[in-house]
Amino acid sequence: MTNSKILIKDIQQGDFVNSKFAVVEKSLSLGKNGKYLRLILGDATGRIEARVWNDAEQVSFLFNVNDVVDVEAVAVDYNGIQLNIKRISKADSYNPLDFLPTSSKDIAKMWDSFRKTISDEISDIMLKKLLYSIFDDRIIEQKFKKSPAALTVHHAWIGGLLEHTLEVVHLCSFISRTYPESLNKELLIAGAMLHDLGKISEYAVSGVSFQQTDTGKLLGHPVIGCSMLKQKIDSIQGFSASTAVLLQHMVLSHHGKLEWGAPVKPQTVEAEMLFLCDLISARKTRFDVVKETCEKESWSAWDRFLERRVFAGNNR
Amino acid sequence: MTNSKILIKDIQQGDFVNSKFAVVEKSLSLGKNGKYLRLILGDATGRIEARVWNDAEQVSFLFNVNDVVDVEAVAVDYNGIQLNIKRISKADSYNPLDFLPTSSKDIAKMWDSFRKTISDEISDIMLKKLLYSIFDDRIIEQKFKKSPAALTVHHAWIGGLLEHTLEVVHLCSFISRTYPESLNKELLIAGAMLHDLGKISEYAVSGVSFQQTDTGKLLGHPVIGCSMLKQKIDSIQGFSASTAVLLQHMVLSHHGKLEWGAPVKPQTVEAEMLFLCDLISARKTRFDVVKETCEKESWSAWDRFLERRVFAGNNR
Amino acid sequence: MTNSKILIKDIQQGDFVNSKFAVVEKSLSLGKNGKYLRLILGDATGRIEARVWNDAEQVSFLFNVNDVVDVEAVAVDYNGIQLNIKRISKADSYNPLDFLPTSSKDIAKMWDSFRKTISDEISDIMLKKLLYSIFDDRIIEQKFKKSPAALTVHHAWIGGLLEHTLEVVHLCSFISRTYPESLNKELLIAGAMLHDLGKISEYAVSGVSFQQTDTGKLLGHPVIGCSMLKQKIDSIQGFSASTAVLLQHMVLSHHGKLEWGAPVKPQTVEAEMLFLCDLISARKTRFDVVKETCEKESWSAWDRFLERRVFAGNNR
Amino acid sequence: MTNSKILIKDIQQGDFVNSKFAVVEKSLSLGKNGKYLRLILGDATGRIEARVWNDAEQVSFLFNVNDVVDVEAVAVDYNGIQLNIKRISKADSYNPLDFLPTSSKDIAKMWDSFRKTISDEISDIMLKKLLYSIFDDRIIEQKFKKSPAALTVHHAWIGGLLEHTLEVVHLCSFISRTYPESLNKELLIAGAMLHDLGKISEYAVSGVSFQQTDTGKLLGHPVIGCSMLKQKIDSIQGFSASTAVLLQHMVLSHHGKLEWGAPVKPQTVEAEMLFLCDLISARKTRFDVVKETCEKESWSAWDRFLERRVFAGNNR
Amino acid sequence: MTNSKILIKDIQQGDFVNSKFAVVEKSLSLGKNGKYLRLILGDATGRIEARVWNDAEQVSFLFNVNDVVDVEAVAVDYNGIQLNIKRISKADSYNPLDFLPTSSKDIAKMWDSFRKTISDEISDIMLKKLLYSIFDDRIIEQKFKKSPAALTVHHAWIGGLLEHTLEVVHLCSFISRTYPESLNKELLIAGAMLHDLGKISEYAVSGVSFQQTDTGKLLGHPVIGCSMLKQKIDSIQGFSASTAVLLQHMVLSHHGKLEWGAPVKPQTVEAEMLFLCDLISARKTRFDVVKETCEKESWSAWDRFLERRVFAGNNR
Amino acid sequence: MTNSKILIKDIQQGDFVNSKFAVVEKSLSLGKNGKYLRLILGDATGRIEARVWNDAEQVSFLFNVNDVVDVEAVAVDYNGIQLNIKRISKADSYNPLDFLPTSSKDIAKMWDSFRKTISDEISDIMLKKLLYSIFDDRIIEQKFKKSPAALTVHHAWIGGLLEHTLEVVHLCSFISRTYPESLNKELLIAGAMLHDLGKISEYAVSGVSFQQTDTGKLLGHPVIGCSMLKQKIDSIQGFSASTAVLLQHMVLSHHGKLEWGAPVKPQTVEAEMLFLCDLISARKTRFDVVKETCEKESWSAWDRFLERRVFAGNNR
Repeated sequence: MTNSKILIKDIQQGDFVNSKFAVVEKSLSLGKNGKYLRLILGDATGRIEARVWNDAEQVSFLFNVNDVVDVEAVAVDYNGIQLNIKRISKADSYNPLDFLPTSSKDIAKMWDSFRKTISDEISDIMLKKLLYSIFDDRIIEQKFKKSPAALTVHHAWIGGLLEHTLEVVHLCSFISRTYPESLNKELLIAGAMLHDLGKISEYAVSGVSFQQTDTGKLLGHPVIGCSMLKQKIDSIQGFSASTAVLLQHMVLSHHGKLEWGAPVKPQTVEAEMLFLCDLISARKTRFDVVKETCEKESWSAWDRFLERRVFAGNNR
Repeated sequence: MTNSKILIKDIQQGDFVNSKFAVVEKSLSLGKNGKYLRLILGDATGRIEARVWNDAEQVSFLFNVNDVVDVEAVAVDYNGIQLNIKRISKADSYNPLDFLPTSSKDIAKMWDSFRKTISDEISDIMLKKLLYSIFDDRIIEQKFKKSPAALTVHHAWIGGLLEHTLEVVHLCSFISRTYPESLNKELLIAGAMLHDLGKISEYAVSGVSFQQTDTGKLLGHPVIGCSMLKQKIDSIQGFSASTAVLLQHMVLSHHGKLEWGAPVKPQTVEAEMLFLCDLISARKTRFDVVKETCEKESWSAWDRFLERRVFAGNNR
Repeated sequence: MTNSKILIKDIQQGDFVNSKFAVVEKSLSLGKNGKYLRLILGDATGRIEARVWNDAEQVSFLFNVNDVVDVEAVAVDYNGIQLNIKRISKADSYNPLDFLPTSSKDIAKMWDSFRKTISDEISDIMLKKLLYSIFDDRIIEQKFKKSPAALTVHHAWIGGLLEHTLEVVHLCSFISRTYPESLNKELLIAGAMLHDLGKISEYAVSGVSFQQTDTGKLLGHPVIGCSMLKQKIDSIQGFSASTAVLLQHMVLSHHGKLEWGAPVKPQTVEAEMLFLCDLISARKTRFDVVKETCEKESWSAWDRFLERRVFAGNNR
Repeated sequence: MTNSKILIKDIQQGDFVNSKFAVVEKSLSLGKNGKYLRLILGDATGRIEARVWNDAEQVSFLFNVNDVVDVEAVAVDYNGIQLNIKRISKADSYNPLDFLPTSSKDIAKMWDSFRKTISDEISDIMLKKLLYSIFDDRIIEQKFKKSPAALTVHHAWIGGLLEHTLEVVHLCSFISRTYPESLNKELLIAGAMLHDLGKISEYAVSGVSFQQTDTGKLLGHPVIGCSMLKQKIDSIQGFSASTAVLLQHMVLSHHGKLEWGAPVKPQTVEAEMLFLCDLISARKTRFDVVKETCEKESWSAWDRFLERRVFAGNNR
Repeated sequence: MTNSKILIKDIQQGDFVNSKFAVVEKSLSLGKNGKYLRLILGDATGRIEARVWNDAEQVSFLFNVNDVVDVEAVAVDYNGIQLNIKRISKADSYNPLDFLPTSSKDIAKMWDSFRKTISDEISDIMLKKLLYSIFDDRIIEQKFKKSPAALTVHHAWIGGLLEHTLEVVHLCSFISRTYPESLNKELLIAGAMLHDLGKISEYAVSGVSFQQTDTGKLLGHPVIGCSMLKQKIDSIQGFSASTAVLLQHMVLSHHGKLEWGAPVKPQTVEAEMLFLCDLISARKTRFDVVKETCEKESWSAWDRFLERRVFAGNNR
Repeated sequence: MTNSKILIKDIQQGDFVNSKFAVVEKSLSLGKNGKYLRLILGDATGRIEARVWNDAEQVSFLFNVNDVVDVEAVAVDYNGIQLNIKRISKADSYNPLDFLPTSSKDIAKMWDSFRKTISDEISDIMLKKLLYSIFDDRIIEQKFKKSPAALTVHHAWIGGLLEHTLEVVHLCSFISRTYPESLNKELLIAGAMLHDLGKISEYAVSGVSFQQTDTGKLLGHPVIGCSMLKQKIDSIQGFSASTAVLLQHMVLSHHGKLEWGAPVKPQTVEAEMLFLCDLISARKTRFDVVKETCEKESWSAWDRFLERRVFAGNNR
């Protein structure tokens, strides 16, 4: 039994909780004993259901979704762990990063692994120079480690961009080894590392959630990333003009279809493989996200990204 | 009656012709008196039908489509002017520009009119600076004046890019005056001037015809142009970041729909108006081109760009 | 400070208001001090927010959306002008036209300008005869001046049809002057004047709002308008059969695409230009409408007509 | 064994033929013994293969496709009946109707049956009056009996419109009897009789083949037919306005989908049933036409109307 | 006037009702006299509106949608018959079949008629053997008689599968007689009888409503039915391999289009006709269902299955 | 220098060739010295250009495409190796398998590797039993080793089905190891092994080329394979019903989209991953095939399967 600051992932039945959380959802509901306030609270480590049983209506005016609140509560088990809230009020000061969902993987380790890809897989001197000039840029590194890979669809958490990019690099690396005669391995891996670079300018933290920036909406990450890449290439004397175009092509076309926002279709086999590996990572993670919403049901609700209902019955 | 070098637009019935022309089409046909060679010849001023009646088969091996040939012929009237060829052989040396189709408008005058738009319509100092930095760049000017606006669809001739851009500028200017409360005139006109800038790298002369470059196919002119624009903006200290994004957005989105190669849809009213004015110029010109192929028929063949057959019967 | 009948566009902070308004929206909301009634009221000159703070629930049963109400209120400033309602009850009698949104432009002047197009731009005697036979028909004139151009998408107000048609005529006129060799100016302008004629039977006033008629839904304004046009043409002896078909074709095809309700695609260049000018007027106005909903936000909500979110940030 | 004028359907092996035929296809082919001319000849009763073995090239200049020719030939069996041509020359005079493909059913009988539908199935006096006013109009009757139902897709022969319309009437009649509570039988049958009325102006005989008229292309038969119908209704005093709209709606919407050229979707159950019965008649006949092209193959070539290959293997 | 067990179809104004019903919809509403509970109750014979005026909120916790309740009420006329509920409580025991919507036609008679099709229409011994082996299988018979034809779209009631299948058989039979040269009647009728066989495993009763089974969602009834059919065919020695494939093809392709869930397009004329007859039955019934929701309105709400609003105004 | 039987892959400049080949393409062309016969010949190891210079026209009647011919020729270098044919005649007898394109990989080794997957990756006893019951069935094994994976798109050679399936198994195996918490490895690998099983009945050898069977066209390999699988499962007592459905679902849905012939969308994450791995193998191979057609060009012709032109310029 603990009392005081505790992370959501560590809360257990019977704990007395005295912590700050972000308000993710808020709604008034009607129970047998009258109105109660139903909350979903969040911090970097997860989300938890919570209830306010007394004065629910008045309490509901004290804070809004996306605010951070000070909470005193006891953890009870009611079809899973739930906070029974005694006191709740808007918090004065806090570090927003503490309340954003965060990758379950170690960001520093992922970064090391990602950066090591350059020395392990790339032998071409110019390509190596380019990749270091980008990923050793401290501003890029800082943003790249913190950015999510999407707002809601998949990898929508701090470190999500890095986690997703690393997955795509590994898939591309495997495919390059499987088809050595057909694929230019170094080009494909460099493309995989760079494909979502523009996302570091597409998303920004707003309060305790992520938002798409104006630039992100007006230009889109494929073009933003292509532009960043071009600028870095222009600063490297002697970089092959044709490789420059092929890399930009991969970044631009990685959404695979015009109607999915690629200004050009993949026209090289490496660009096509990058598109499909990106899709595997995104779809796999989206299935995970949707299946988590199923709880004890066998079927999910309609998912507008996958355009289908998902069967979760085979996991039990 | 003339003899010797003559331009296609000047050829009249009875002329003796002794000139160089590009071979645009070549085919062997069977007539009542045996095989003859059917040619379409071209120079900067137009195209003309021609026939070789003797030794057609042997003569046909002497040159290919896209070659330039020395021709001696007499102009006869056979359902329109046609060259009756006496002698024809592959030319040794020539200036390719003499054989590419060329705008019927005066390129220098169009350029003056285009450049004058900046002083006449743009009062914002930074925007003016940007436009001069681009269109006073001699390399850009040279390419911009020579580039076609497309390979085959519309304005597919030297000076076509300038001619088309000027049309779009005029349409946007009129619309800005019509809706002064709704449209940011200077933003719209600047966007119109810049929208097809990337085409100067998308097309290149190959022999006596135009080709799309590798870069053009792999990146597409909206992104190429956006990239050029970004580079020029970055060199102007104090240029508004938000205007920079809005201009890039217009260049990127001017194809109007994702499935037409815009990586983002037009999200500002100026971007949407630019898209529609561009469409008016392109469609109008495509109708002209298709109707010219009708000759004496009321209906064109199926046109895969317009996705319809065109009625030309109302022009007679 | 005024008291008594006042138009919405004239209401200022502090005014005592004693007027009739239409109820455009009605909802019960929960505030810190309990339930209140949130209204949007309208008249021909605009819309205004209003609140009933006392007995909100009972008051809410006294009238419905689309009713006209007698209101006593004071205008206060609460993030913009708002009516604080003291008394409100269903009105007994009123003229529906007083409560329908109305064009901000002078309808009589627009009509003069529209009618003058015939003498200014049309020299063909038969075409002139046709246009006068239609627009000098008093029943048509009355309906044409009052009809909206749509229910919700654009120009959804009294006089909207006239306002929109005039815009399209001006655009077509400019384009005809720009491309004199390619376009039949008189045909295009006549088509522009006639293109939405069928809308006078497609919409009808129902209470204090517009509705689509059964005929409008079952036949659609392109066919209704084509039918009206055909009837007028048949009454003019000697009217050219081919011009008759070309005019009908423009009216029928002005939605541009089969999936947008055109039974045939535009097959003449004039029909295509009419379609695009119509689109410019409609899209421009839709952007205006959507941007007005943004208030202080940079981005609109998803708009199902434009199929995108709109950026309004460049207007500030 | 006969000699002289003979219809294609009557030609048998060994016959000496001395008749006029239309030239449907013409091509020079290369056989073991040199070039020969391969023809497909046609008259109102069918088509037949024919060969010219001597002087094939010279003979080929004597006539073109769509000409009518005088033929002297002997009928031989070579994988089916084929004409071995001795003499062939362009015919001077002939009645085009003798050479157009014609329904295998008796047109006069079909017309009686069609006209009898009015007395048998329609009891509503106004509807009866309308149908008689249309189908007792001698100009309409003449055209309706001769028109094909399409150029190439289905029922592309003289009498085809009548044959197809009768099929649709029978299907609609059956469906009305099957669902008496759901369907307004008289409305549905009247709609079925009228649905393709506009085709009498959409197609015209040109030489010895059918062509789509300019009006047909520019307006389309649903609108042309709706217009004819409207005109007839307007001439009948007291005709119900709502029935008038419902009938027009059925004619306009009978293509079922906007992308198939219906300006509005079927919005009544009768309009929807008409669309589907029309589809059954058209598809059934298209399958027949495609399967006939299979000869001894089990599978047809790709059919662009059905958008599939058709299996004919179950007919043997 | 009756008291006690009564079926919904028999309830009349003034009846005292003491019966079990299923709860189809439940909502709390606000009236002039405070909150009341609005219910829609159902049994096998229909649905009826009901109200609880006292203690509405507390009563609302006593049961949920899809429960069966014991009801004491009086039937009043309030814009149609409505139950004024005195007492209501969750029922202890009941037979779910009593509360599922049921075909208005006699299931035993439909089954006799359906089974008689085999002897009346099928002369081929093998085909007859196959159909008897399927429809004389008691497990299949029991399921086939009880299954609905869909969850919500059409024929969504006990006996609905049989009712729909019989309709399709009758349509196919009529079409076979209409086109005897084009259609293989026995193949088409057998296909019609079998086309929805898989639905007996696609739907299941869950509480007092229908649900799609996991197998139904994961495999779909065309494939399930094809599989059942294959198994039965394999058990009949000497069954023609080609007929086996043609029958499976009809079952698989009866949705007509790939995007509607057919793994292959109909490639035989019989498969195409089956698809269209199935569509007629489904669309007709969907129009009926949608029109019933219109009550006194002329137009239905948007229907997502028909993708349109439906006009019901011609039924009054 | 060799003379006599030689495989195409072994032919070198100067070789005298005396072998049998299949005729893949045949056309008469016109050269400076008159007509010549241009052939593409093939055997199991590849294809080669060939020419007949003398009596080309007569020789062309001696055989057709898809025949096997006896050839005497000398290999010359003319922009690559080419056969200069001295004598050529239709062959009397041959083994068709000698002339079908064949995988460049060793089929026996691939089979061992494929079969070993069962013991290496599958621990579930029932699943193992199922896979052995299928792949130890000698008829299946024989067909599976010989079948192509497609007619023209990808892996269109003997052993192609095995080669492609093995690729998909390896990709799925890698992905299972990458995402152990999200994916049921054994289910995914079993699905990968089984996904194209139906192709053994979809394709057949016809002469010296592959054809789709009637059954293949009418049912499609996803359903055929699902049916085979079901039959094998039914023969294994105690096989889990839910696993049976999940496996069938993977086979049915592996085309990923309804419009690509999947009767159901992938609704489990394993089915989705299988679809994407299948796509990687197919697309990679299609790019290879298309790039081979480029020879010395940088860009391929339009490819209707990839719906794009492919850039091959980065391979040189």
